[in-house]
Amino acid sequence: MNLRIPGPVPLPDEVLELVGSQMIDHRGPEFAVMLDRMTRNLKAILATAADAFFLTSSGTGAMEAGVVNTLSPGDRVLSISIGVFGDRYGLIAEAYGAEVTRLKYALGQAADPDDVRRILRDAPGCAAVVLTHSESSTGVANPLEAIARAVHDESDALILVDAVSSAAAIPIATDAWGIDVVATAAQKAWVAPPGIAMISFSDRAWKAYEAAKMPRFYFDVAQYRQYLQIGQPPFTPCLPAIYALDHSMQAIVDEGIEAAFARHHERAEQARDGVAALGLELLPERSVASDTVTAVKVPQGIDGRELVRRVREEHGVVLGGGQQALAGRIFRIGHMGWVERHHIDGALRAVAKTLAAMRS
Amino acid sequence: MNLRIPGPVPLPDEVLELVGSQMIDHRGPEFAVMLDRMTRNLKAILATAADAFFLTSSGTGAMEAGVVNTLSPGDRVLSISIGVFGDRYGLIAEAYGAEVTRLKYALGQAADPDDVRRILRDAPGCAAVVLTHSESSTGVANPLEAIARAVHDESDALILVDAVSSAAAIPIATDAWGIDVVATAAQKAWVAPPGIAMISFSDRAWKAYEAAKMPRFYFDVAQYRQYLQIGQPPFTPCLPAIYALDHSMQAIVDEGIEAAFARHHERAEQARDGVAALGLELLPERSVASDTVTAVKVPQGIDGRELVRRVREEHGVVLGGGQQALAGRIFRIGHMGWVERHHIDGALRAVAKTLAAMRS
Repeated sequence: MNLRIPGPVPLPDEVLELVGSQMIDHRGPEFAVMLDRMTRNLKAILATAADAFFLTSSGTGAMEAGVVNTLSPGDRVLSISIGVFGDRYGLIAEAYGAEVTRLKYALGQAADPDDVRRILRDAPGCAAVVLTHSESSTGVANPLEAIARAVHDESDALILVDAVSSAAAIPIATDAWGIDVVATAAQKAWVAPPGIAMISFSDRAWKAYEAAKMPRFYFDVAQYRQYLQIGQPPFTPCLPAIYALDHSMQAIVDEGIEAAFARHHERAEQARDGVAALGLELLPERSVASDTVTAVKVPQGIDGRELVRRVREEHGVVLGGGQQALAGRIFRIGHMGWVERHHIDGALRAVAKTLAAMRS
Repeated sequence: MNLRIPGPVPLPDEVLELVGSQMIDHRGPEFAVMLDRMTRNLKAILATAADAFFLTSSGTGAMEAGVVNTLSPGDRVLSISIGVFGDRYGLIAEAYGAEVTRLKYALGQAADPDDVRRILRDAPGCAAVVLTHSESSTGVANPLEAIARAVHDESDALILVDAVSSAAAIPIATDAWGIDVVATAAQKAWVAPPGIAMISFSDRAWKAYEAAKMPRFYFDVAQYRQYLQIGQPPFTPCLPAIYALDHSMQAIVDEGIEAAFARHHERAEQARDGVAALGLELLPERSVASDTVTAVKVPQGIDGRELVRRVREEHGVVLGGGQQALAGRIFRIGHMGWVERHHIDGALRAVAKTLAAMRS
């Protein structure tokens, strides 16, 4: 199978071998050494000198951790959404009692920093801005640096970023851009299986933590900070993902994070060029297309669900379909983490052949 | 290494091989088949016809899910605690705003159903009773059936059970005893790696859900129920633990749950007999000792931390130490999941040799 969904990503053999390693004592010396190395590498990759933690959850758990550790019920939150995952961040804040203002864009568009600037100026007192960096439901990357600048220029709001499908693949200068919480997950560009999510947590976020009244226990970052001092997680961690992450994060650090970004950009360009060569259209403008997932419009007269099904069954290529409002209208090619040129070529060839068969 | 902590449990080769299997699409047909089979087996093993779900978290996440999906801030909760994990369930309820009454016992004791009966009679209106089944910090199993009877006799309270280190090893008749939420985790008697926790959710719990006002998103069971209808989890699941659980739960069902209980009892008896043969003393009375973990008093004049360290370094046997108030005062031998007679013998032999060396 050529697994080309936007995560979980396929894993190379040497990583799978580590995933299948025997269990160890997560409160023993071996784990402490691993956790120390992993924490240093995570902070290096996220370009932050602040805290960073590993949670046993999906990326959504890390997003929730960002919200519940920094906010109180009634706090005003600006939720910038360009798709399903942007919506989700607003829903999480709302579930915990935040007063959420929504800035929503048409599917396939990126957010405009000037809109953010205007909204924050017109309605001061926003406690946090939540947004998705790479919206994998539409294949769009938000201009995070410019949005962060707008937020800091116009407010004291915290910035909580769903970087689940962007971190380690698309540049994020966490400290330099003043991002307070970066939420991401092992099964994306980190080349590990699902089970572990990661968050960075800035000094400003810690200041907010002191006053934050949303309830929390499993995702309480103070517990993670306290246990980290003795080289342990507060709760039993997902060891298979830990083993893989330890290896894969070291590989990213050894390669150099800039090289990893360049590699992702190159594969994404290959995918976008290939889509154009097939006479197909991207959902977004190419200028805002994400380097981790390519969303392609299903041509007129073709059933998108059927296309994805046949590509899978007849060619062993697993594409992402469209979600919610885009169901049947787009297909998506994931290209984060371990991606060889032939993975992309193979996926595009399977799409071409299937479209030809469906049209004949 | 002979990993004899009370979880994560060591995994046999055939399970490790599955843990290291390639990633698949968790929204694809293959996963749906797996999730359906796993849900049926989970319900069979927990002896419930009600709902049961797989969460990507540690067991603590499943405990939190029980609380936040059934209760509202201000609800009165009786927390029965015989150790660290019993305390934790009360802390979770309190973190979310419940008014918690504590019934605490000395370390090494089991809870007395008559105390529960008296408290509930004296102070009516309790919304939920939370307790640990097998308290792995003290090696004690609570008389769950009798406690559940007392709760039902005296109140309408829900019963939320931390069965993290008991389910699939020590009998729990979820429906027959009227347990509303059973929380457990893959890395215990289920013979899988950490990363997935499981909960059962009774019809009474669903009724409570309708009125429950504690905030929740990642652990919202309604999302799990809704997605289960299309053969998916709401959030990306920990696939390595899923692969292992699917195999291991089928193995338990094929063996027969009664046989699995008997097997655990036999290994526990072996451990207890072995401890007695060494002239050592159990922390609890033998009659309430848990069948999944044996807690042993460190003899007078011996440094318990040093004992655990030397057993590990000199004999490759990883014991559990004492937690919190019991640090240095006890050591613990885990025997849940895949345990051969020689695993227990080897651990006891290592303890005997190390004690002899420390005394000489």
